Amino acid sequence: MKNKGTRGERELFHLLWNTKEWGVLRSAGSGSTPMPSPDLLASNGKRYLAIECKVIGNTNKFFSEEEIQQLLEFSNKFGAEPWIAIKFDYIGWYFLQPKEINKTKNGYSITLDLAKEKGIQLKDLLKCQTL
Amino acid sequence: MKNKGTRGERELFHLLWNTKEWGVLRSAGSGSTPMPSPDLLASNGKRYLAIECKVIGNTNKFFSEEEIQQLLEFSNKFGAEPWIAIKFDYIGWYFLQPKEINKTKNGYSITLDLAKEKGIQLKDLLKCQTL
Repeated sequence: MKNKGTRGERELFHLLWNTKEWGVLRSAGSGSTPMPSPDLLASNGKRYLAIECKVIGNTNKFFSEEEIQQLLEFSNKFGAEPWIAIKFDYIGWYFLQPKEINKTKNGYSITLDLAKEKGIQLKDLLKCQTL
Repeated sequence: MKNKGTRGERELFHLLWNTKEWGVLRSAGSGSTPMPSPDLLASNGKRYLAIECKVIGNTNKFFSEEEIQQLLEFSNKFGAEPWIAIKFDYIGWYFLQPKEINKTKNGYSITLDLAKEKGIQLKDLLKCQTL
């Protein structure tokens, strides 16, 4: 699972980088320090996107309350927009904001149906001509 | 040397984090991707600091032309201020901007004398009350 997540992060890193308009930084943080940091931080010098990346093989992804809280906390400090990037295998990437995802008893979840309904594509997130 | 650099990065990461006012992210980038990224990116939601960290045991640190170029390039894309954080063992941290450091034949250098003359302290860099 870790490798899958890392592959997803790297894929998205390169997609962002290849736009030329956006810079992107991969965090060493997750796990190695108790300080919350998102998987990726991207910027075009005007907007800052704090991005948590997930790659899943099924159609429902669970998030703990803490995971979402940390994304919001970091984003707030950094003046960044909080985003969840979720890739469904063989389907593709969707980008959602924490406020759009399902609240469950112990946290949050994103289903494929929700992603299709509320999620946006990378080119729309970036409002980018080169994607 | 790698471990020393990593220790320096972590030390500075914690110094920044402990201010409470600033968020900070450690980059996984250096080395693992061909895309330039600074060791640390810090922000208080208004200012963004791209920081390259060095820890040295002697009194003169050399930087390649490319290293400085990449810091400037990343900072430009991210709308961040480029900073070099240099720690001289048993003396402490100094923060300098690339434009302030010495140009040499093949790159740049920071001597302890230059750091003492031009460098500023973290609390002055952050204009921070809690340091």
